[in-house]
Amino acid sequence: MEDSIRLNAAEILCIGTELLLGQTLNTNARWISQELAILGIPHYKQVVVGDNTSRLKEAILEASKRCNYLITTGGLGPTNDDLTTETIARTFNTDLEENLIAIKDIRGKFTSQGIENMPASNQKQALFPKGAEIIPNPKGTAPGFIWSPIKNFTILSFPGVPSELKDMWAKTAKEWFQKNSFNENIFESRVIKFAGISESSLAADLEDLLEKENPTIAPYADIGEVKLRITAKAKNKKKADEMLNPLEEELIMRGKDHFYGKGDDNLASIVIELLRERGEKLVVAESCTGGAIGAALSNIPGASDVFIGGIIAYNNSIKKDILGVSQKSLEAYGAVSNEVVKEMARGAINLFNADWSIAVSGIAGPGGGSPSKPVGLVHFGIAGPKGCETMQANFGMHRGRLNIQKLCIVGGLNQLRLIMLTRS
Amino acid sequence: MEDSIRLNAAEILCIGTELLLGQTLNTNARWISQELAILGIPHYKQVVVGDNTSRLKEAILEASKRCNYLITTGGLGPTNDDLTTETIARTFNTDLEENLIAIKDIRGKFTSQGIENMPASNQKQALFPKGAEIIPNPKGTAPGFIWSPIKNFTILSFPGVPSELKDMWAKTAKEWFQKNSFNENIFESRVIKFAGISESSLAADLEDLLEKENPTIAPYADIGEVKLRITAKAKNKKKADEMLNPLEEELIMRGKDHFYGKGDDNLASIVIELLRERGEKLVVAESCTGGAIGAALSNIPGASDVFIGGIIAYNNSIKKDILGVSQKSLEAYGAVSNEVVKEMARGAINLFNADWSIAVSGIAGPGGGSPSKPVGLVHFGIAGPKGCETMQANFGMHRGRLNIQKLCIVGGLNQLRLIMLTRS
Repeated sequence: MEDSIRLNAAEILCIGTELLLGQTLNTNARWISQELAILGIPHYKQVVVGDNTSRLKEAILEASKRCNYLITTGGLGPTNDDLTTETIARTFNTDLEENLIAIKDIRGKFTSQGIENMPASNQKQALFPKGAEIIPNPKGTAPGFIWSPIKNFTILSFPGVPSELKDMWAKTAKEWFQKNSFNENIFESRVIKFAGISESSLAADLEDLLEKENPTIAPYADIGEVKLRITAKAKNKKKADEMLNPLEEELIMRGKDHFYGKGDDNLASIVIELLRERGEKLVVAESCTGGAIGAALSNIPGASDVFIGGIIAYNNSIKKDILGVSQKSLEAYGAVSNEVVKEMARGAINLFNADWSIAVSGIAGPGGGSPSKPVGLVHFGIAGPKGCETMQANFGMHRGRLNIQKLCIVGGLNQLRLIMLTRS
Repeated sequence: MEDSIRLNAAEILCIGTELLLGQTLNTNARWISQELAILGIPHYKQVVVGDNTSRLKEAILEASKRCNYLITTGGLGPTNDDLTTETIARTFNTDLEENLIAIKDIRGKFTSQGIENMPASNQKQALFPKGAEIIPNPKGTAPGFIWSPIKNFTILSFPGVPSELKDMWAKTAKEWFQKNSFNENIFESRVIKFAGISESSLAADLEDLLEKENPTIAPYADIGEVKLRITAKAKNKKKADEMLNPLEEELIMRGKDHFYGKGDDNLASIVIELLRERGEKLVVAESCTGGAIGAALSNIPGASDVFIGGIIAYNNSIKKDILGVSQKSLEAYGAVSNEVVKEMARGAINLFNADWSIAVSGIAGPGGGSPSKPVGLVHFGIAGPKGCETMQANFGMHRGRLNIQKLCIVGGLNQLRLIMLTRS
């Protein structure tokens, strides 16, 4: 093999027939691409092949002639169509050997769930090419590995389950790349988050900044949110920070109260942080979201310190009997109205003796809409120490039920954040 | 070139640096994969390259040696980094020529928006390799094309904008494939779903079937669930159905009560369907999931017919004050215990006058665990017309908070399903 033509770059090889049949969306390739961009590792090619030994072998060999790093995802499971490890070893005429730490770890995961006899098929997940370094998988039974079968060519193999891949990457591979990629410059990225503004409106406010070349600004729209990733290329972290700090400040200032957080923050974590600082307690009263705002809050570790619970008032009888919404308001204004969310929000605060409440009632569709109250119409009520505020939004029926429900989560949490920050 | 080694199959080549930077999720590759599967066109490889002439040329040449059809997306726009058409023509030493119908159409799209002077850059979108057939683009300015530069190798080029690609595919390419692919067989796939069993245990129960070649069986693990995809290759849909029907029956029989649904079913939709058939109503009483079971139910259109709502009893005071859990049980057994989930489940049914309830209380972590009650321990209570059953699971602390919460959703819904089906 000619080392000279091999690029100091990474390729991604995703393995799985489900990708070729279109049954799975390849979110792994995108996620790894973003991580490589952050690390400053050039990345020029992605390949997808199915669970097929000869085509997988061909793809590995081709990559080994083109680049220094090959990242694979998928095919590390226990079943017969999981061929990745074995095929990688065979491609370079290497034997597999059992890793004792890995087999103990896999057994332990079954034992801790009360299963004494590990299925025989899981045994093969502890086999690796001789000389490979193991990447532990804290969340699953498929460890990954890092292996250099030939000079200047290293394969990093991960399972296809996105949550396992991400966890393993963050704990092992990221550091490995930082040590081994011999990059003269580092790339440093930060993410700044905004809610209650569209991507195009935010971009228009930042038009003069978006053309910058170093640091760069890249906007990403999410449901009800916009993220800006700013990336600096510099000799070291200190220099990169010096470039990023003033830009970050400028963007936060321009984003006004749409700016809510950075990095791993989300609206639920920010709301919980605000409540914790103030020593106050929150409850929810959810109709069209069916518990999803509560679930978003309880995803945050330690949420129980400030989030007490709530009422899922999907049915009007619960709005009346438990939350104390009046029959009169339901009849006069309907369940999706400022009056009803106000009574829901107040009812929840009183019932649980809380400081704050978020109430939401809307029409998520596809049925249930009318000309005066179309699918996508949502009313929010936020009750707090200084009274109750209501607001309404029309998210548009074209969005579909799941996105309307997601917009309700973002909208409700963001309204509470704004009121806590600005009006109390 | 040796025709003999070229497969009667299609490859997908997606072109765009935004894909390699992770700025865009490659939904086009998945969508085209699904379309190819429906048409029965074998599809063994997908490649992504950036807006770079030499790497694009290399990828086209490689594909031309492997398969009969290459479908490209992206790089047909008006800007300098849109290189696809020119590079395809150059790869096969062919000149570009202007297509008069295309240039008229592009000009017309500007005129209809009141723009008399079409930007000069758009002119290049009417250039195609000599001999290419044009694919009109009703939604945008970038027409696609179908071109066979060499014997038994045809390139079908589409823009990268998903809505344009889909529209053009449906109106032109689909028919072209049906006419030209000389495919004697179609492929038909079904998905069968199981809960409460691991991928390896299910695979062990099916070991003798997993080696089948037509139809094939492929297992996929999801959080708390396993899916089997069965695929038949046959002359027509009727023949494929005749092959799939008995296999599906066999798999459902072997899966016993772990089998819960097919295709787009999920546990929430199945539970709602069961309730609707029986005319019964469900409520939830959620501690560690914070509303996520309610949210999963309310994701299903029409859930409000049978799902009334529930209590998010994150805090013990709610378990006591609203659900009526006794102080005595909380003290004697702790909030995560069979006794407490039983009282929660019964309390919820009584409060809302429902037929069924799911109660869940567990330790999602990362904090809050103890040797006797580790992170990952979850108790479920299912109350129904014939009384209340409880069960406990230890999902293992290695899973992490979010996965433990997801396993609680799957576990709670699956327990309700099992009890409704088998014991009432």
